[in-house]
Amino acid sequence: MPHNSLSIDYSLRYQRIKLRLMAARQDAIIVINMKNIRYLTGFSGSDGALLVSETEMILLFDGRYTNQVKREVTGIATAEYREKSEGIARIIGEKGYQHVGFEAEYCSFSLLARVRQRVDNGIQLSPLGELDAIRAIKDEYELSCIRQAAKIVAQAVTGIMASLPRNATEQDLAAEIDYRTRLAGAEAMAFATIVASGENSALPHAQPTNRVLSNGDVLLIDCGAVLGGYASDETVVFFIDRITEKQKLVYQAVKQAQEAAIQEIKAGVTARKIDRTARQVLAIYKLEEFFTHSTGHGVGLAIHEEPRLASISESVLLAGMVVTVEPGVYLPGEFGIRIEETVLVKENGCEILTNIPKIPTIINIGD
Amino acid sequence: MPHNSLSIDYSLRYQRIKLRLMAARQDAIIVINMKNIRYLTGFSGSDGALLVSETEMILLFDGRYTNQVKREVTGIATAEYREKSEGIARIIGEKGYQHVGFEAEYCSFSLLARVRQRVDNGIQLSPLGELDAIRAIKDEYELSCIRQAAKIVAQAVTGIMASLPRNATEQDLAAEIDYRTRLAGAEAMAFATIVASGENSALPHAQPTNRVLSNGDVLLIDCGAVLGGYASDETVVFFIDRITEKQKLVYQAVKQAQEAAIQEIKAGVTARKIDRTARQVLAIYKLEEFFTHSTGHGVGLAIHEEPRLASISESVLLAGMVVTVEPGVYLPGEFGIRIEETVLVKENGCEILTNIPKIPTIINIGD
Repeated sequence: MPHNSLSIDYSLRYQRIKLRLMAARQDAIIVINMKNIRYLTGFSGSDGALLVSETEMILLFDGRYTNQVKREVTGIATAEYREKSEGIARIIGEKGYQHVGFEAEYCSFSLLARVRQRVDNGIQLSPLGELDAIRAIKDEYELSCIRQAAKIVAQAVTGIMASLPRNATEQDLAAEIDYRTRLAGAEAMAFATIVASGENSALPHAQPTNRVLSNGDVLLIDCGAVLGGYASDETVVFFIDRITEKQKLVYQAVKQAQEAAIQEIKAGVTARKIDRTARQVLAIYKLEEFFTHSTGHGVGLAIHEEPRLASISESVLLAGMVVTVEPGVYLPGEFGIRIEETVLVKENGCEILTNIPKIPTIINIGD
Repeated sequence: MPHNSLSIDYSLRYQRIKLRLMAARQDAIIVINMKNIRYLTGFSGSDGALLVSETEMILLFDGRYTNQVKREVTGIATAEYREKSEGIARIIGEKGYQHVGFEAEYCSFSLLARVRQRVDNGIQLSPLGELDAIRAIKDEYELSCIRQAAKIVAQAVTGIMASLPRNATEQDLAAEIDYRTRLAGAEAMAFATIVASGENSALPHAQPTNRVLSNGDVLLIDCGAVLGGYASDETVVFFIDRITEKQKLVYQAVKQAQEAAIQEIKAGVTARKIDRTARQVLAIYKLEEFFTHSTGHGVGLAIHEEPRLASISESVLLAGMVVTVEPGVYLPGEFGIRIEETVLVKENGCEILTNIPKIPTIINIGD
């Protein structure tokens, strides 16, 4: 989708899932998560299934997607079904798979029950953990999508902030960001854009309200674009007309926590350590208790994916992973500050992929 | 959310799910589908669970939603969890439920396995079919939301069509529709707005492309707004600069099919009959084979819900149900026509809730 000459090496992706197949000692895996299916085949529909064996992948879809599959999928076997369990059971029978694993986090109890009913008694269906980690290391094509998504959204946000309209509500501003981002070529927003002003900024998962932006407000914006299926994600905080000493101090603390975390990021470091670093900096300022979520998450075809930068994460960062770094401090009833970049893990450090300058910018409401 | 004095009677909704509980002969039901949870409690978060017994409902949520639950939920017991299966198992244990049903279509294999591990051995967990049908009959509050959503989106679309900009792409037009709809107060779009021009209109599930709108194009727009959580849904077809005889004939056939179907709608009629009626009209024109999807679906908190107006549907229409009626004819490589209204089923007929006039309007590209 980005206007460049990069292409996707699906055979490499097939090798990745085959490693999982072999580790699970199955004849085949039923892939259910549509993000994994898109990653492995290019099919971007919202329903389907994929069977992966040691010799081939077979994409299963229903009649709504006949044209789309033709357009999007090449070099991979495909088969249409009337009902998903019927399609899955048919291929298992035809191919003679005996031991079949399935994505237990994404497979509903009903779908599994229907497949079980339709296949021969001897066939073993076994729950597998998530396969999502196969998507964690990005290739050049994926990075170019994320870079371009980040560029588009940065232009939209900075353009709007240069002349913030009078009497705009949080909802208006969110609509404006989305509008400009999409006119600039984004396929969609990566998630519902967060615009939180004043004390609403103290809610980590605020949804835009009809609150009118006013002088003295903290203005927190968290948004991302989708390009070629890939998401960007960043959070920037502005101050309307003025900034208080307290806001400045909290901003600097969060900024320092984020910079320390980013400084730590390179291949081989544990995700847990990045999270701990951010918390340790906030602890210096007695602000740790107000940082109520984890430090970051992988970004790609899904807005939240592997690895998680959390205190309980078991992940180790590897070159090519793309993660957010987004410490925040939320002072209930007062204001909140979150600063977020999307970064690419490299052998000896990391590269920031997002573009909006993360400085405590004071903006003005226009005439 | 609509500016009126209507309110939601949650006790009535609780009675509805209690009927299902009694029919299933369980001590409690684990509700997983977030639309059902919102319907029963008012909680609009994107993760959680609900336990329903004969004496109470208990909403389970994680720490991300503490504030939101306080704001949105009153008169219903709530409990926070660290991990969903832990929360569910804890309440089952505390309350001493022995026979517990769960929504098998929405419960992942993993979640069920984790709950099973955590509860006492004697406790029976039984798969239940969908509970979504409890939401099928709308009350006055729900109808007022849908009506207002439909009004907002109609104003946006007709406003844009009055002066279609030069060199606009399908993507631009979709962004413009969404922008105006949201500025007018919609919380979100009901689904990704479809703008399909020229031969793209022959794809029933087209996604907006960068194709530039030009004279001679069929222009199909399928969109809806969300207000108070409730969706509207309609499809309108315009003709840019001119209309061919063939386009006119197909339009009239689809319109006739839709009107015949709408004519049939009233309480007591089977959903299947509505679908058949639309097909029979298209068969007269030898166009039946180009109508490749079902005639309609329920609309409410979900954009696709019960009942389905399809040939295999078992549903009977009841007063208060809200359904789309949307026959279409798709001529591959040429053009497609779909005409869709959202209608309210009444005792002796139905009422159209959508507002854009469904006539073969010729529009012009501006300067």
